[in-house]
Amino acid sequence: MAKIEKISPLAPLTFPDLPEIAGVLFATAATEVKYRGRDDLLLVSFPKGAVVAGVLTRSKTFSAPVGLCRKNLATGQKARALLVNAGNANAFTGKAGDCAMASTVNCLAKKIHCETETIYVSSTGVIGEVLNDQKINDHMAQIVQDLSPKDWPAAAKAILTTDTFAKGAARTTTINGQKIQINGIAKGSGMIAPDMATMLAYVFTDADLSQDLLQAILAAATDKSFNAITVDSDTSTSDTLLAFATGASGVGGQYGDMNDPALADFKAAFQDLLLDLSHQVVRDGEGATKFIAITVTGAEDARAAKVIGLSIANSPLVKTAIAGEDANWGRIVMAVGKAGEAADRDALKITIGGQILTEQGAAVAGYDEAACTAHLKGQNIDISVDVGSGDGAATVWTCDLTHGYIDINADYRS
Amino acid sequence: MAKIEKISPLAPLTFPDLPEIAGVLFATAATEVKYRGRDDLLLVSFPKGAVVAGVLTRSKTFSAPVGLCRKNLATGQKARALLVNAGNANAFTGKAGDCAMASTVNCLAKKIHCETETIYVSSTGVIGEVLNDQKINDHMAQIVQDLSPKDWPAAAKAILTTDTFAKGAARTTTINGQKIQINGIAKGSGMIAPDMATMLAYVFTDADLSQDLLQAILAAATDKSFNAITVDSDTSTSDTLLAFATGASGVGGQYGDMNDPALADFKAAFQDLLLDLSHQVVRDGEGATKFIAITVTGAEDARAAKVIGLSIANSPLVKTAIAGEDANWGRIVMAVGKAGEAADRDALKITIGGQILTEQGAAVAGYDEAACTAHLKGQNIDISVDVGSGDGAATVWTCDLTHGYIDINADYRS
Repeated sequence: MAKIEKISPLAPLTFPDLPEIAGVLFATAATEVKYRGRDDLLLVSFPKGAVVAGVLTRSKTFSAPVGLCRKNLATGQKARALLVNAGNANAFTGKAGDCAMASTVNCLAKKIHCETETIYVSSTGVIGEVLNDQKINDHMAQIVQDLSPKDWPAAAKAILTTDTFAKGAARTTTINGQKIQINGIAKGSGMIAPDMATMLAYVFTDADLSQDLLQAILAAATDKSFNAITVDSDTSTSDTLLAFATGASGVGGQYGDMNDPALADFKAAFQDLLLDLSHQVVRDGEGATKFIAITVTGAEDARAAKVIGLSIANSPLVKTAIAGEDANWGRIVMAVGKAGEAADRDALKITIGGQILTEQGAAVAGYDEAACTAHLKGQNIDISVDVGSGDGAATVWTCDLTHGYIDINADYRS
Repeated sequence: MAKIEKISPLAPLTFPDLPEIAGVLFATAATEVKYRGRDDLLLVSFPKGAVVAGVLTRSKTFSAPVGLCRKNLATGQKARALLVNAGNANAFTGKAGDCAMASTVNCLAKKIHCETETIYVSSTGVIGEVLNDQKINDHMAQIVQDLSPKDWPAAAKAILTTDTFAKGAARTTTINGQKIQINGIAKGSGMIAPDMATMLAYVFTDADLSQDLLQAILAAATDKSFNAITVDSDTSTSDTLLAFATGASGVGGQYGDMNDPALADFKAAFQDLLLDLSHQVVRDGEGATKFIAITVTGAEDARAAKVIGLSIANSPLVKTAIAGEDANWGRIVMAVGKAGEAADRDALKITIGGQILTEQGAAVAGYDEAACTAHLKGQNIDISVDVGSGDGAATVWTCDLTHGYIDINADYRS
């Protein structure tokens, strides 16, 4: 949670190409609220009629901006702008934090001539320091003037904190045969164990959808992406995932519900984009050297499968074993056991990198340990566990636990 | 979970003096099941009429010995012997593991002429390897012959795995004015997040109590000792805490229930001994350099307070901050928030080492950071959190998360 470290070994080679989305404009600025020599403020503006949906942290100590987003979402109003600052989370700052946030919202509302309830805010960074609203407001006139439809990479970079690379994803899909664009950006590296969403992620599309429909699509996609990842089991006070649909494509319109066949491609692309972004967060996990996919089958139901998967994914002993490239499946057995969900000890089957290590509740004699070790020496680790108790399945993703995590979190004030 | 590291900096200076308990006899042996050059087998025998109570892991992947103890406890029979081996947990070993265990129990029952149901067994060490019963049985005649009432330190040493010091405690108390002795030994260092008990711990007393009463006293004391500690949030497959009461003192007799005033001193001493042993386990936490006590007040009830306390105690970000001697209370706010229990964000009060850092949901201006830092540079860290939502209180104990934990768990096969 401190200075930017060297780039994660699991980072994508390049930032993807994100096409323009009609009506969505960006600008960034360097306010020096905390960081020096980099942009730390992002403004995104939307055309009139843009619909917004969101999932927010369930933390009881949620930040001021999370409270604001929750309140605005409940009004059902359209969205006109998104303002994000990095370096200060404006969390646990009491009334002073609320006032500082209101000051920036009021300043922006005047500059772009909109209702304050149509402005969405996120803050990320250190907890417990009141945001310096003046430093942000001083840049408001300029940032509004700078708004343009280009430079997604700059937008993705301006919201980072301890991240080692900018995170973006794009999908082109169709509704009723007509082209629809979906772009997303995210940040996150530590304090990653989302409860409703994780850290900050924003998705933008030119589809024309109602708020209820966008919310339903977002919630379903989140469950199998951002809500299925963990870096360190710690849940942020600021987790925010917002989706904005401008309707500028003219494609979409009033669908009755999310099961409309015309939305199938769109939903798949939306889900795929969220998965991509959430995996990028895991790939930037603090100190991560391995990207780990854990699939649990044979659980009582999908919920139970996910609980067991996260029990494995959050186990420090499993995570350190993977870091040590050690096929220590005994620790996976342990993590299944502690999850509290139904699991048949004597039917447990564990597979690593395609090698079946245990079956019928005991080690497989003479499995190919060399092949397993070779898999563990790679960057992408696949673990499958069948708990022999039903048809429930789920996949979750995490990273390993290394000296790098201790370096980042024990040596600097976040 | 591997070779014995250098002694924990939090270790007690000496092993305490444990007096003899009439009728309780010990012996140890070196079977070389896994370790070389050290005793790894402990036999304890009890006089006829000794009562036993126990709390065992709730893990779904419990070891063979845990299953045996649970079955024997349910019969309500007296206990004649306890057999413990270190180096192999005999967990996740299927029928072969059950057979190996039965072989050692049968061998011992013949040697000491008792029913097999009166023999209690524990195994600790690597998961997933079938126990070599022959190596144990080869030493059975000798170990029975060696039984003697002395050398508690040797008994405490024989059950260790990755522990860096032997753990023992003794209390002398009274029932109805007559002297009663309570001794205990324990092992545990990693995979410590007990659900019903933790790792292996054994308590011995010469009090004369019924099984039901001993069980009630044990369960109550466990809740505030072994079930209130965590090293790494990982729960062992072998957690076992057994208490044996020989009745040899002739003091005690048939008490109606555990609220009998005559038992007050005994219960207090019993609780205090369990607390002492459980703290020794935390002080031997893998890689630990700080012993951390976390007291939560103002929760809805005691259960909620414990959940919040364990959320703080298991947070990797809190644990690394303490390792870095950083009063990063924002991470404590985060851990309170993610616990899922009622907490009033705007009433939260956090105290470290007596310094009030936050009050009314915001930082206290100008608190004595130097005093707080001085406290954090010590070995014993006190954190208090009031969540402003009720009268529930609980204290839990943990250690910090350091490079030492990664060294121990990422670099060797456990």
